[in-house]
Amino acid sequence: MQSIEQYMQTVGNQARQASSVLAGTPTLVKNNALSAIYTALENSTAQILAANQQDMAKAHENNLDSALLDRLELNPTRIKAMLHGLKDVIALTDPIGEITDLAYRPTGIQIGKMRVPLGVVGMIYESRPNVTLEAASLALKSGNAIILRGGSEAINSNQAIAEAIQHGLKASGLPETCVQVINTTDRAAVGQLITMTEYVDVIVPRGGKSLIERISNEAKIPVIKHLDGNCHIFVEAQADLHKALPIALNAKTHRYGVCNAMETLLVDEKVAEEFLPRIAELYAEKQVELRGDAAVKRILGSSVVDVTEEDWYTEYLGPILAIKVVTGIDEAISHINKYGSHHTDAIITENYTLARKFLTQVDSSSVVVNASTRFADGFEYGLGAEIGISTDKIHARGPVGLEGLTSQKWIVLGDGQIRQ
Amino acid sequence: MQSIEQYMQTVGNQARQASSVLAGTPTLVKNNALSAIYTALENSTAQILAANQQDMAKAHENNLDSALLDRLELNPTRIKAMLHGLKDVIALTDPIGEITDLAYRPTGIQIGKMRVPLGVVGMIYESRPNVTLEAASLALKSGNAIILRGGSEAINSNQAIAEAIQHGLKASGLPETCVQVINTTDRAAVGQLITMTEYVDVIVPRGGKSLIERISNEAKIPVIKHLDGNCHIFVEAQADLHKALPIALNAKTHRYGVCNAMETLLVDEKVAEEFLPRIAELYAEKQVELRGDAAVKRILGSSVVDVTEEDWYTEYLGPILAIKVVTGIDEAISHINKYGSHHTDAIITENYTLARKFLTQVDSSSVVVNASTRFADGFEYGLGAEIGISTDKIHARGPVGLEGLTSQKWIVLGDGQIRQ
Repeated sequence: MQSIEQYMQTVGNQARQASSVLAGTPTLVKNNALSAIYTALENSTAQILAANQQDMAKAHENNLDSALLDRLELNPTRIKAMLHGLKDVIALTDPIGEITDLAYRPTGIQIGKMRVPLGVVGMIYESRPNVTLEAASLALKSGNAIILRGGSEAINSNQAIAEAIQHGLKASGLPETCVQVINTTDRAAVGQLITMTEYVDVIVPRGGKSLIERISNEAKIPVIKHLDGNCHIFVEAQADLHKALPIALNAKTHRYGVCNAMETLLVDEKVAEEFLPRIAELYAEKQVELRGDAAVKRILGSSVVDVTEEDWYTEYLGPILAIKVVTGIDEAISHINKYGSHHTDAIITENYTLARKFLTQVDSSSVVVNASTRFADGFEYGLGAEIGISTDKIHARGPVGLEGLTSQKWIVLGDGQIRQ
Repeated sequence: MQSIEQYMQTVGNQARQASSVLAGTPTLVKNNALSAIYTALENSTAQILAANQQDMAKAHENNLDSALLDRLELNPTRIKAMLHGLKDVIALTDPIGEITDLAYRPTGIQIGKMRVPLGVVGMIYESRPNVTLEAASLALKSGNAIILRGGSEAINSNQAIAEAIQHGLKASGLPETCVQVINTTDRAAVGQLITMTEYVDVIVPRGGKSLIERISNEAKIPVIKHLDGNCHIFVEAQADLHKALPIALNAKTHRYGVCNAMETLLVDEKVAEEFLPRIAELYAEKQVELRGDAAVKRILGSSVVDVTEEDWYTEYLGPILAIKVVTGIDEAISHINKYGSHHTDAIITENYTLARKFLTQVDSSSVVVNASTRFADGFEYGLGAEIGISTDKIHARGPVGLEGLTSQKWIVLGDGQIRQ
């Protein structure tokens, strides 16, 4: 039997070769392949559900927690949602080959940029089988080969989905190696994947912060990474409370476990007396625990938990909210840039100058005026789908859609020019 | 005395703080600072030349090679050229704050992108004092703080230039720590610089391939790297020889030691008999050594050196050229994608369909039709200046100007929207 290293080298080499084919594949052929995958998946629904039941049974046996079980589980509704997402990707505009900024230079040459695939994407994710299809379809559409390494609890589900994908690829005449799902749960495979610089162009990890930090530290390949989402809303003195109240409620309570939920609420002292009791009432209905500084406690009373320095750094991902009363926009911006995770932060204000200042000075991947932080995702931004959200500044920042899986090459058109 | 580690931590921390100030600095203030640096440098010409003479004397003592001495040397003409380059940077459009793609979504929010600085740039380069000013001015213009680590042979020159830069920064009211030149030649400083993830956002190395490979391997921070420039020209069967001859001559002989010089010439067999003797005559005048396969030798005779497999991979950076006769565009593209370094490759042809195919299928940072590969640089492309040329696909590809030192954040403008 071959070693993990040999296996991964083979996978990498095959991905590299498939990526050359894919890079030159016209949109129509890529869309036909995605449609063939759609059909193959639809026809394999029973097999995929059976494989998922195996994974679920084992997960129950191993007493895995309910959040993991929820992410792992597939059912007919979820398969339909996956197929719906695939349809959306087929409908997206193909970014590849787009030429922009083509302009003449004084020498008479024309210079422009052409969008091209990155090559091979390595995806490492937790036990969420729907990600297997989502990532594979985004990679194919953007002309990239992909190597998928899902969580070990989902191995049977992922293999069943992979089989359907490969069936579709074969039917459409594209190499089956365009999408490869690692067939081992051995962790050494991840170590290989993130260091095969000759075969893999970018790593996209999805999962908990510690996983992503470990991958980033050990990877020899660029990583599009998503760490915390410690998001803020600043209710400025000139906020329209008819906007501030629903937004602050929505950003905290619409969903708790998501990266674009608000974790700290900053309130200008000039509006705190009026705003805080009203929002606290709404939070009380949702049983959100409030943690505040002395000023907050003075207004809201002793039911508010004392906030600590540690709270300002914390992404609760649950029904807890830290609240701070600030003296104005400068303190709010300083707080956000110091304690935040540069993910998504919002100001609620009717003041033009302060909105403009907040947009410019807050150093976050999404900066929002008068809307909920919950909008920060690829679907809401019109990317059609997202392969992840980047908290980095290099290459891609914020929600990463098809374009984040591409690069641009320069094209030069001349009619005989030489350099003087 | 403090350790190298303490020193570098201080430098990094200062750079991070300066970068916050710079990020919010208006164009006018940045331009005023660059103008103040211009004046300070002009006034310090004598001191800079004296410091350079110390470096040159030591380099002579140590019997350093003539190429290094040439790169190290400053003289009044070169200082003038540096000042001229600085004027050019002042005239460039400030990329920071530019908002693009601002459009409404069905929810009524507007989504767009705002260009922002990366933060702190770490630059590692050989003993070329002019790079100190060039990199500092590009970083300042794009709102980034920069930490510069030049070659040890140029330490006195670099410190003298740094002093003038800091004089200018001070005069303009910006923190002097916007530009910091490492004051030690200890190599441990480089090791620190490329791993201080909390303080440095991107590393730009310039120098030999082995230096860049070592930095890329050891860095914990994204590296904009520039490895080989093994560039090709493919003279297609329908090439206009009035274009092909001057371009092939220019791309090889205009300058030998540059990354965008041609290293391998590919000639379609249908035009080889006519083209090769004529270009060989031109190369003979320039004493370029030709290395060819059997078909080339049959046409040009035995003065052609036998080419080896190794030659196809080689960036000669000198008066040597490998030549191959190919059966057509498919062989040419395969050869380029296999042996090339994905830097810059050109086709000479009058055929529309083949030009289009070459542009699409050649996987290089610059792909050229009917012009010399020598055009591949930031000035010729209209970037105004370049901080380097990237042979990567992630973040920046090809010549990297101001825009390569920036990122984009998303901005969201609403009037009270919440997520449903």
